[in-house]
Amino acid sequence: MGRYEEQRSFLKSNFLEFKHVKTDKIKGLPKPMTVKPYSSSSVIIDLPECNEGVVKKQNIYDCIKERRSTRFYSEESLNLEELSYLLWATQGITSTTKTGLTLRTVPCSGATHTFETYLFIMRVEGIRQGIYRYLPVEHKLLYMSELDEIEQKIDAITLDQPFVPNFSKKAAVMFAWSTIPYRSEWKYDISAHKKILIDIGHVSQNLYLASESIDAGACAIGIYDQNLIDEVLGLDGDEEFILFLGAVGKKRNDS
Amino acid sequence: MGRYEEQRSFLKSNFLEFKHVKTDKIKGLPKPMTVKPYSSSSVIIDLPECNEGVVKKQNIYDCIKERRSTRFYSEESLNLEELSYLLWATQGITSTTKTGLTLRTVPCSGATHTFETYLFIMRVEGIRQGIYRYLPVEHKLLYMSELDEIEQKIDAITLDQPFVPNFSKKAAVMFAWSTIPYRSEWKYDISAHKKILIDIGHVSQNLYLASESIDAGACAIGIYDQNLIDEVLGLDGDEEFILFLGAVGKKRNDS
Repeated sequence: MGRYEEQRSFLKSNFLEFKHVKTDKIKGLPKPMTVKPYSSSSVIIDLPECNEGVVKKQNIYDCIKERRSTRFYSEESLNLEELSYLLWATQGITSTTKTGLTLRTVPCSGATHTFETYLFIMRVEGIRQGIYRYLPVEHKLLYMSELDEIEQKIDAITLDQPFVPNFSKKAAVMFAWSTIPYRSEWKYDISAHKKILIDIGHVSQNLYLASESIDAGACAIGIYDQNLIDEVLGLDGDEEFILFLGAVGKKRNDS
Repeated sequence: MGRYEEQRSFLKSNFLEFKHVKTDKIKGLPKPMTVKPYSSSSVIIDLPECNEGVVKKQNIYDCIKERRSTRFYSEESLNLEELSYLLWATQGITSTTKTGLTLRTVPCSGATHTFETYLFIMRVEGIRQGIYRYLPVEHKLLYMSELDEIEQKIDAITLDQPFVPNFSKKAAVMFAWSTIPYRSEWKYDISAHKKILIDIGHVSQNLYLASESIDAGACAIGIYDQNLIDEVLGLDGDEEFILFLGAVGKKRNDS
């Protein structure tokens, strides 16, 4: 028995064990909501419809070849069309089944889509700094709040990583994906959690490639202060908590 | 404390705990090999150099938009150029740093790249059915063995999923990615395992998009018989084991 036995076992297929589990779905418990509700008094921001006109580097081969994790960005802002495209590429709904399942630009086990997308917006034209939530059904943004000293706060959240100096000060926007794990646990029980992590990788890779295609760079961030970011976003840290982050900014000429 | 507490905690950032861990890297233990060695007597198959001529649907916007998990395929074979492209898009090396780290077509925490790619080849022109391993440094294939009744074997590995009838009989090739977790544990210790799962999602998404761009469809498979597939591939199930699967085949006209 090795030192990492428990962690390694989490990486393995537990389907033979799962087969004998009576899931909440099988028990007939109510299906969890597929998206997070919001108050009708919320401040909602329209996004321009996603269109391919925003794509500069169209060729997928070039995008795959030239993608790099980008940790330094220009001071240029993103525009709303570009932000709309990045949100669509990462969580956009491309069709809805008769039973109400959403099919998206990313694959997801059983179309359970446990993620919510939060944005720390630093520099996007036509939109003020602050924290937002993406509404995938409406393809709109929900304004959550201002955030004092947003850049310093992100530095604290990402633990002032010494290898990423002034990281957030250059990024135009920081994606923060939460998971609401019960959306998957209801159906997959103990098999849910491995799937959730793989599925956020699907999302992250689309953020990378879509960023590359608009002359921006992205960097996935797995090191962060769990309690701090959940608190900043008002998540309870149990039924919903942040899973992964991705920074995006326009590329520097010298990068 | 909820029912899934342990599993949910695995999804969270444990960096604050990890900060106090003395990793094997810090202890000065030898760095694990970055790729799996092979015998000089192995049968090695050249792959055509990856080139973008193979890409039919070039536009990344269209590839993202039209990608779907594809579970039924035509009887058409892939050709070697297409297989070369899919291997490059998922694990191809695009540059190597002075310190010997490989940078690839997919991002990976600390460029630790814990994955090895195995292929169950059913129908690829110019290559016989059997099991192969991808050699990313050489961009070649290593022939491992024939596999009697390869399609039935894959059905057994994927547990004869009733919702995927005759799944493997239609796929032209099945990717099976293993992890050698110590490549990451050496550097990240208890933080390695969450990263490994997210990183295989990065790989899987590139398989989806690259497949879409050559008129093929892919389907990620997270449900499989862990012991059986490790045994078939000769993996020890501890230091190396299968993490995730992806089937690929040409699209049917009616799909």
